[in-house]
Amino acid sequence: LVRDVPDTQQFFVICVNSLGSCFGSTGPASRNPDTNKTYRLSFPDLCIEDIAQAGWWVLQSLEIDIPLAVIGTSLGGMTALAYAMDHPCQSLVSVCAAAQAFPFAIAIRSMQREMIRNDPDWENGNYRMNNGPKNGMAMARKLGVTSYRSAQEWQTRFGRQRREPVPSSSSFGIEFEIESYLEHQAKKFVGSFDANCYLYLSRATDWFDVSEHGGSIYQGLRHINASHILITGVQSDILFPIEQQQALATTFTDLGKNVQFHAIPSLQGHDAFLIDEARFSPIMRDFMESLP
Amino acid sequence: LVRDVPDTQQFFVICVNSLGSCFGSTGPASRNPDTNKTYRLSFPDLCIEDIAQAGWWVLQSLEIDIPLAVIGTSLGGMTALAYAMDHPCQSLVSVCAAAQAFPFAIAIRSMQREMIRNDPDWENGNYRMNNGPKNGMAMARKLGVTSYRSAQEWQTRFGRQRREPVPSSSSFGIEFEIESYLEHQAKKFVGSFDANCYLYLSRATDWFDVSEHGGSIYQGLRHINASHILITGVQSDILFPIEQQQALATTFTDLGKNVQFHAIPSLQGHDAFLIDEARFSPIMRDFMESLP
Repeated sequence: LVRDVPDTQQFFVICVNSLGSCFGSTGPASRNPDTNKTYRLSFPDLCIEDIAQAGWWVLQSLEIDIPLAVIGTSLGGMTALAYAMDHPCQSLVSVCAAAQAFPFAIAIRSMQREMIRNDPDWENGNYRMNNGPKNGMAMARKLGVTSYRSAQEWQTRFGRQRREPVPSSSSFGIEFEIESYLEHQAKKFVGSFDANCYLYLSRATDWFDVSEHGGSIYQGLRHINASHILITGVQSDILFPIEQQQALATTFTDLGKNVQFHAIPSLQGHDAFLIDEARFSPIMRDFMESLP
Repeated sequence: LVRDVPDTQQFFVICVNSLGSCFGSTGPASRNPDTNKTYRLSFPDLCIEDIAQAGWWVLQSLEIDIPLAVIGTSLGGMTALAYAMDHPCQSLVSVCAAAQAFPFAIAIRSMQREMIRNDPDWENGNYRMNNGPKNGMAMARKLGVTSYRSAQEWQTRFGRQRREPVPSSSSFGIEFEIESYLEHQAKKFVGSFDANCYLYLSRATDWFDVSEHGGSIYQGLRHINASHILITGVQSDILFPIEQQQALATTFTDLGKNVQFHAIPSLQGHDAFLIDEARFSPIMRDFMESLP
């Protein structure tokens, strides 16, 4: 997201991989030094607050006490909220995130986890590394992509376009472009993301709830000392709907913060922050440059 | 839908099970009289037009040439459109249906079919009858229910309510009410619907496209001789979005029909026509009683 913006001659950008993920941080796919075996499901319960705390330790090791801005998108936006509830920061940026998951989003993620667990190759988490539950992960990714984009984008982009060759009738194979697109997205994903890590991070997203930090979202957000807040969301997002971003912004305003809120009209749904740089970048740049 | 309304002393209601379904009509779960074996995937390709034609044969057998109204909901609404394109009727009622499936709906149904086919117990359609792909059918039903309802309804109804007891951490079991609700819906469904029938009917819905009857939706609907048209849809429907119902109504108006269109503000999504009788019934009654 912060590529090209803000000016990295002026701002020092630290990007921390999430605790629990398999791209450099410790997680279920890491080796447990006590047993010399991969953690798998013996990895401790993971919540968003743990991910935030791990990021704070990274800043501690760099001797940074108060970052200028804590920035996050989606699960990372929840992590930024969790960080800011526990530690001081000058400003906070939440992109396509929320103070808690709503049941529609929980349903989607719960089904994704079940698809993975239903795959016989998951083997209760004990699959051979790099040879995990491919079918389950592919299905989880397809449903994920469906929740990350928007019906309007797909109507514009794919409509009812067909693929060649037509599959045999009894194979129930791919006929429409939209099915081919989902298959392509699934193939790119399978093998790159560890299934157990996926389960842990997915559940952490469902568990997160700002209102558990004091009884209500308002009370939870009161713990945040950042003075300047930027909340951006996408109007076509069905996973972290814009109403949740609006509610976040309103609560921060009630708390007397200096708040900017942008409801971005991108067609790409939740994923817009990965794609629609033309809309997101100027908002981010202007916010960063306006900070005292 | 037509329960209590209209007055069945005045109107004779004929309700035909869909060809391809396993509740009384011939389908993949029926015995092929030529081989004395269950059809399974040897059942011929099934499209919505076939289902409509089977309904027409029922009327023929009853010596009814021109029904007063052809009425259908969802897939049945598509069937009503197909019937009316091929055969005369005085009026047409489409409830939560569409002239063609959009890619978002195709994606949902394609994933449902893949979940069933991925279940090892599907056995390429050769499962023992009454002992089919239970996991695949359960997952397909959960995704189905998610597409049939609305995020707003679930937020109101379930929020973030938890279930007792809390499952063990490594089981990734049910924690939230919304997960329990989906599990309940899946259990009710599995065993009652034949998996191969599900695949055939699901694909038929994706295949249906009024525009294949003449080159455009307008040209397709021109084949319909019904003079009075009622189109109803639900504002919170994500599977057959209200924009598609509006487009149907507009096209019928352009064709000079006497059209009623209702965008119903129910919270229950696509399923509202099964639930929100208080809103649907008066519309149906008034339409039927207004027919010449």
